[in-house]
Amino acid sequence: MTTPLTISLDAMGGDAGPEMVIAGADRSLTHHPDIAYLLFGDEAKITPILKRFKNLQKCATIIHTDVSVDMGEKPSQALRRGKRNSSMWMAIEAVKKGEADVCISAGNTGALMAMAKICLRTVADVDRPAIAALWPTVRRESIVLDVGANVGADAHQLVDYAVMGSAMATALFSKERPLIGLLNVGVEEIKGLDEIKKAASIMREKDLPFDYHGFVEGDDLGRGVVDVIVTEGFSGNIALKTAEGTAKQIGTYIKDAMTRTMITKLGALIASNGFAALKRKMDPRGMNGGVFLGLNGLVIKSHGGTDAKGFASAIDLGYDMASNKLVERLSRDIESFHQAESIEENET
Amino acid sequence: MTTPLTISLDAMGGDAGPEMVIAGADRSLTHHPDIAYLLFGDEAKITPILKRFKNLQKCATIIHTDVSVDMGEKPSQALRRGKRNSSMWMAIEAVKKGEADVCISAGNTGALMAMAKICLRTVADVDRPAIAALWPTVRRESIVLDVGANVGADAHQLVDYAVMGSAMATALFSKERPLIGLLNVGVEEIKGLDEIKKAASIMREKDLPFDYHGFVEGDDLGRGVVDVIVTEGFSGNIALKTAEGTAKQIGTYIKDAMTRTMITKLGALIASNGFAALKRKMDPRGMNGGVFLGLNGLVIKSHGGTDAKGFASAIDLGYDMASNKLVERLSRDIESFHQAESIEENET
Repeated sequence: MTTPLTISLDAMGGDAGPEMVIAGADRSLTHHPDIAYLLFGDEAKITPILKRFKNLQKCATIIHTDVSVDMGEKPSQALRRGKRNSSMWMAIEAVKKGEADVCISAGNTGALMAMAKICLRTVADVDRPAIAALWPTVRRESIVLDVGANVGADAHQLVDYAVMGSAMATALFSKERPLIGLLNVGVEEIKGLDEIKKAASIMREKDLPFDYHGFVEGDDLGRGVVDVIVTEGFSGNIALKTAEGTAKQIGTYIKDAMTRTMITKLGALIASNGFAALKRKMDPRGMNGGVFLGLNGLVIKSHGGTDAKGFASAIDLGYDMASNKLVERLSRDIESFHQAESIEENET
Repeated sequence: MTTPLTISLDAMGGDAGPEMVIAGADRSLTHHPDIAYLLFGDEAKITPILKRFKNLQKCATIIHTDVSVDMGEKPSQALRRGKRNSSMWMAIEAVKKGEADVCISAGNTGALMAMAKICLRTVADVDRPAIAALWPTVRRESIVLDVGANVGADAHQLVDYAVMGSAMATALFSKERPLIGLLNVGVEEIKGLDEIKKAASIMREKDLPFDYHGFVEGDDLGRGVVDVIVTEGFSGNIALKTAEGTAKQIGTYIKDAMTRTMITKLGALIASNGFAALKRKMDPRGMNGGVFLGLNGLVIKSHGGTDAKGFASAIDLGYDMASNKLVERLSRDIESFHQAESIEENET
């Protein structure tokens, strides 16, 4: 750990590259003036942009590399080409070396996860890191994981996800015993949910650092009934993207409805304060950032297509996670869960 | 087949029971005056309600039974108690006997599927019937299946779903070769998608009654890029409910935003025509009804909590499916796909 908080950025990641990353870093600095940045990437591209941000310049160090991972590159190829010397790898490695408290990249998700796993390794004997997302609800945010690191999960992995999500909820919502729900389908008849049922019984019976709420369904995600919703990565990813798509779709409906006639346009104009509030509420940039959980270090994935405002949200999220010592709490909780499991296995 | 179209209703199904079912049947009659109804259920409860609907009375026959399936009952229990003599079973059986063209129930989904499978049996050698839903998009509706009949599906079952969904799209959208997409996650790194990839290669290579578009993601569901989206039932159910939940959530946001101040209230009042259009667009009752595909007969599941308007939508959907001879088309297509597959297996 370093003081003040140091954040390493993959300056070359994202559809818009260094321009967006640097403007985002500057924006986040206005929320957290004590950040120090390490900017990994092509110095020739970064320097002229950085010059435009006087405050940022004072607290940012550029570490040059001319290798960067392409957005469309396969993880295996990215590893062959960019292990050790790419901006993405070096930004992650800064966390491993203790030079940074958290790494943020808007680059290729698969490559970022592959590099983070190899560089940082997983905590204790966690098989699989997960990606956790913040989910807006009618109450406050929930945490949903896994939203796409892995397809499928057995009961033990689902409980790991719950322990990891719970640590994140404690860090983020300052709640000592977060409330956890397991995503399931409501139809009684359905077969094949054995792993979910088994995970539920572990969560009910074992001494774990959270309270288990029970099953939740897809339409509970936006209700905010629990702090953390646990699911395997395929359905988690489908749920996340479906919600994003539905929000966009309804955005189109609203626009169409309000531009139908001169009268509706006038009404919308008068209610423009309300529409501005609605827009803020529905703005996906306010809740940007997938947190990689289960690694010996903190890595956050920003949406590749976001802008400076969205990237700043991902930095803010990383800042919160790092200052609340997420990794330490998560490691402790996972280790004590695994220890209890192995004692029990030996006894039986 | 009977003329005019005969629709059998489980009059006791749904949270609101016969009151809602009968009012829905009457409502649908105004769209399709040639319907004849068979109403299965408790005569003592149905008769007084039916008396209030003069037109409906003329074309409805009550078939009395005092057994009905409870909304919370387990399918196995429902079968033990209600096989042969429950309103749900008898409504399905009317389709089997050729007395009705389609059966509609707002009752217990698991029980309805279990009874439909036993009573009607699956088409050709389809392992698993699927539940297909209409999905509103910014263009026109798409069909999504399976939304919850089964968890998991192998490549062959996914292609079965595609063939069945394609037959439904032809019946509903009058499109000779519908466009089919396979729901997937975008992260390259992810493992475990072998069955989906295998299904994709079958769809690309085989001579099938549709055009294969490729993979689609959760946020494509609302875009209307394809006619049919195929997925296994767990993620399909999660997606459907997530979209419903997100729509409700945004509905709450809109209401909050428009009632913030006197000014926003005034603006919303002036734009009330626009809001009415938006409300119609977002009304889940307009697209109610899960179609059971892959059975020797047509069964439609209405939302249990719907009202007369929503139940009428399910009847309208059943009417369309039956008059366009969905089951005949589906059986023909599935049989020729399975025949081609088995010829190939014998050759290799």
